[in-house]
Amino acid sequence: MNHLISAGALAGTGSSAVLERWGVFEVAVAGKTDGNPFTDYNVRGVFKHKNETVEAEGFYDGGGVYRVRCMPSFEGEYSYRVFGSCMEGAAEGAFTVAAPTPGNHGPVRVANTYHFAYEDGTPHVSLGTTCYVWTHQSQELQEKTLESLKNGPFNKIRFCVFPKHYVHNFHEPITYPYEGTPCDRSGLTADNFSYQAQYEGNDWDFSRFNPEHFRLIEKRIADLMEIGVEADIIVMHPYDCWGFSKMSPDEDDLYWNYVVNRFSAFRNVWWSLANEYDLMRAKTTADWERYAAIICRQDPYNHLRSIHNCRHFYDHSRPWVTHCSVQRQDIYLTVEMTGDWRERYRKPVVLDEICYEGDIEHGWGNISGQELVRRFWESACKGGYPGHGETFVRPDDVLWWSHGGELHGESPARIAFLRDILEQAPGAGLRYERPFFGGGGAAVPEGIFDAGSYYLYYMGLGRPSLKRFRFDSGASYRVEVIDTWNMTIEDAGIHSGAFTIPLPAREYMAIRLVRQ
Amino acid sequence: MNHLISAGALAGTGSSAVLERWGVFEVAVAGKTDGNPFTDYNVRGVFKHKNETVEAEGFYDGGGVYRVRCMPSFEGEYSYRVFGSCMEGAAEGAFTVAAPTPGNHGPVRVANTYHFAYEDGTPHVSLGTTCYVWTHQSQELQEKTLESLKNGPFNKIRFCVFPKHYVHNFHEPITYPYEGTPCDRSGLTADNFSYQAQYEGNDWDFSRFNPEHFRLIEKRIADLMEIGVEADIIVMHPYDCWGFSKMSPDEDDLYWNYVVNRFSAFRNVWWSLANEYDLMRAKTTADWERYAAIICRQDPYNHLRSIHNCRHFYDHSRPWVTHCSVQRQDIYLTVEMTGDWRERYRKPVVLDEICYEGDIEHGWGNISGQELVRRFWESACKGGYPGHGETFVRPDDVLWWSHGGELHGESPARIAFLRDILEQAPGAGLRYERPFFGGGGAAVPEGIFDAGSYYLYYMGLGRPSLKRFRFDSGASYRVEVIDTWNMTIEDAGIHSGAFTIPLPAREYMAIRLVRQ
Repeated sequence: MNHLISAGALAGTGSSAVLERWGVFEVAVAGKTDGNPFTDYNVRGVFKHKNETVEAEGFYDGGGVYRVRCMPSFEGEYSYRVFGSCMEGAAEGAFTVAAPTPGNHGPVRVANTYHFAYEDGTPHVSLGTTCYVWTHQSQELQEKTLESLKNGPFNKIRFCVFPKHYVHNFHEPITYPYEGTPCDRSGLTADNFSYQAQYEGNDWDFSRFNPEHFRLIEKRIADLMEIGVEADIIVMHPYDCWGFSKMSPDEDDLYWNYVVNRFSAFRNVWWSLANEYDLMRAKTTADWERYAAIICRQDPYNHLRSIHNCRHFYDHSRPWVTHCSVQRQDIYLTVEMTGDWRERYRKPVVLDEICYEGDIEHGWGNISGQELVRRFWESACKGGYPGHGETFVRPDDVLWWSHGGELHGESPARIAFLRDILEQAPGAGLRYERPFFGGGGAAVPEGIFDAGSYYLYYMGLGRPSLKRFRFDSGASYRVEVIDTWNMTIEDAGIHSGAFTIPLPAREYMAIRLVRQ
Repeated sequence: MNHLISAGALAGTGSSAVLERWGVFEVAVAGKTDGNPFTDYNVRGVFKHKNETVEAEGFYDGGGVYRVRCMPSFEGEYSYRVFGSCMEGAAEGAFTVAAPTPGNHGPVRVANTYHFAYEDGTPHVSLGTTCYVWTHQSQELQEKTLESLKNGPFNKIRFCVFPKHYVHNFHEPITYPYEGTPCDRSGLTADNFSYQAQYEGNDWDFSRFNPEHFRLIEKRIADLMEIGVEADIIVMHPYDCWGFSKMSPDEDDLYWNYVVNRFSAFRNVWWSLANEYDLMRAKTTADWERYAAIICRQDPYNHLRSIHNCRHFYDHSRPWVTHCSVQRQDIYLTVEMTGDWRERYRKPVVLDEICYEGDIEHGWGNISGQELVRRFWESACKGGYPGHGETFVRPDDVLWWSHGGELHGESPARIAFLRDILEQAPGAGLRYERPFFGGGGAAVPEGIFDAGSYYLYYMGLGRPSLKRFRFDSGASYRVEVIDTWNMTIEDAGIHSGAFTIPLPAREYMAIRLVRQ
């Protein structure tokens, strides 16, 4: 009995139908439809290459179709076998994996303890942004968001699987994740809403997913993959009025399995267990640990995993946490503590919320472009990875932070400038070295294999009229004065020994020293 | 045998010769001059009023003159008896203490755990500045400093007893504290100097003070007293090339006794054991504790006592520490931690170094007026007491931070504006209450006796375009929108219940709510 519907590179995951290394191979089979296919049946695949065997669980995609996906980590010949209780026997076949196309470097991994690199070894300087529910907006707006990302400096975006109920988020998502009907939110405003409230009218079947909801999201994961943007998927969040944040453990587990089985094969996936997990009062640490176990078991590719706080950090020393995903600890304090968190957790520190550029009511969303860029530099020079967001009050109520669309702020251009500078730095990431020449410190390459090769000195709010240096090594340095806000780099000559660099006594200046 | 030279109000400590409450009464006697009067003899006084007996040790002032001083804490009749090994018998007499003149509120005490008040109960909103060695500059410059202080917003100044050796501090002080000769500092510059170094040519007799040095300082303490400025006396510091930071324990103790015996009777004295005590590598915790014991024993008036750090705080929970004297913990982090330190130490938090307005090379001295004023507001609204300093590169190399003189920055006018607002607040000091109306928090009166009477909401770097409030109490509030940088206060009307205040989406705004 042949159940096979199709087998090949997933449509929309490459510039051609050719399957490339770290692409998505998908097998679709026709399976049982009686009862509840989401809960009553399973489908699995085994994908074999001389160097690896991938065992992956699939998912029911509605209409009698079950799918299993594989992200091949090697070039060359693979065979596959798909089977499970949804079908009789198995679907078998073979496929060939080609070399990756330019821009495809594989999934991002932790490298050098505090940093990231793609699987092919290319360093990944993470500079992310947040558009929480951009995939739940109109297709037209989603296309605009993609266009903005394509032209912008960001190589990671955080967004949610579930829709969002919050200020500026009272219109309905284009799809819901479950079969059923939502509560009525008409008439809700910033003044009278609450999240995690009990609203009347929700009638969901938490045992039956709406495959279209997930299909639309994964289309966008694939789109992001194509433009080199990591998809930092927020699987749970508290901004809820539909009950998605308060399901039973069995319902949660069904959801987690579905999400992980469905999305894992996209190389650009990062797992964020939750946004502001500590606001999800229905969940306990045991719940989070159970979800983490599901990811670890069901994701064959070991994608990056973290969990984002509101006030209190999750214990980032847990072995399943690959990197810290940090929200500010105060309206001000966050990036300044990058070094402390590196020391405490010995993992990459990603500062996903350091307040957003904008002018909305809330303290987390109304800092200036200057201040956001200062935080980016400060954090990056301390060996962390800062994240962007934008929250300007808009006539159309489309705020980048939630809906995507167009960028209006002054920070993205400066973040692009910073990204260039960071990508030009030698080695695999920076760390902060202090004290350094009396006052402040400098970013230097992580590790000590080539000490003294490079210094990036950021002065932030400081406005020195000069800076003295002294090198006893005899080395000569190319000195450049960088205006991080005006995005200029001035050559200040080649110097050695003791020398003084005049500075314009302005804020947001940096000095780069590269050994000649 | 009558040794009495004079007895009466210390010249220069009042607008007239009449001794007022909390003024300085001084008895001068002629005493022995053989041997070393600084070490071989003592002089003591007992001053009696029906409400108090002050026992004070005096000091040798050179030329055969010994002095004993008393700060009377009550009005009315006092008798005195001065005696000691410096003389035969005793000098006795009586004096009358008048009511304090306007502006004289007595010494500053800790009030309400986290705050300060003068002894007559008037709240003291501490807003200090620093001119480390202004009393060691030319008399002309000292007069300029006093004039600046008189016209400025500061009610406390930190300064050193010892001269200072540091960048911008290579010219000689007008006097030295000891008999002897100093090292030669000609030729030293920012490039080739070091402090705590061994310089050639120092030849001091650490057992013989130069009374003129201390006389000139106490003249300035008295001048500060007259204009209502507290004298936060830094008794030790590490910026030394003369050996004053490396004396023996016996020499140190002689010095501490001399300073405390000489200066205690001035009501505006605060004791700062050291600036950046942790940079004084020759001293141990046992040393600091011994000095503190000397102050506690020798100062009959229990003046405020603290010790200022560079990196690591002294243990401010020590019982002799009356308040925390804090330096920043990073180029950025300090004022944001005001609340943490209040909680940890349960004492007033004075933030004496939060970076200075200026443009010198060093990170601690080149922030903008805006940023310094932001730190002032942030700290004050968190229930702390911030301090000012100014370090602009100047053609004459006169920097307020060390030498005094004139103020050139933009912050003092704004600090005056802040001081007015703080002095208008009800109660005895503010504390920070959070969370408050979703995002951020507000300064409210310390204690809970009149909750809801007053809110001062500071938005710092936040630029909200509106702020929502909701009071369920039924109370009405006068709402004012304050631009802390442009120093304007706009009446936004009287409101109750739920209301929204439009804001200009600029940085550095505050809102004041006063219950009607």
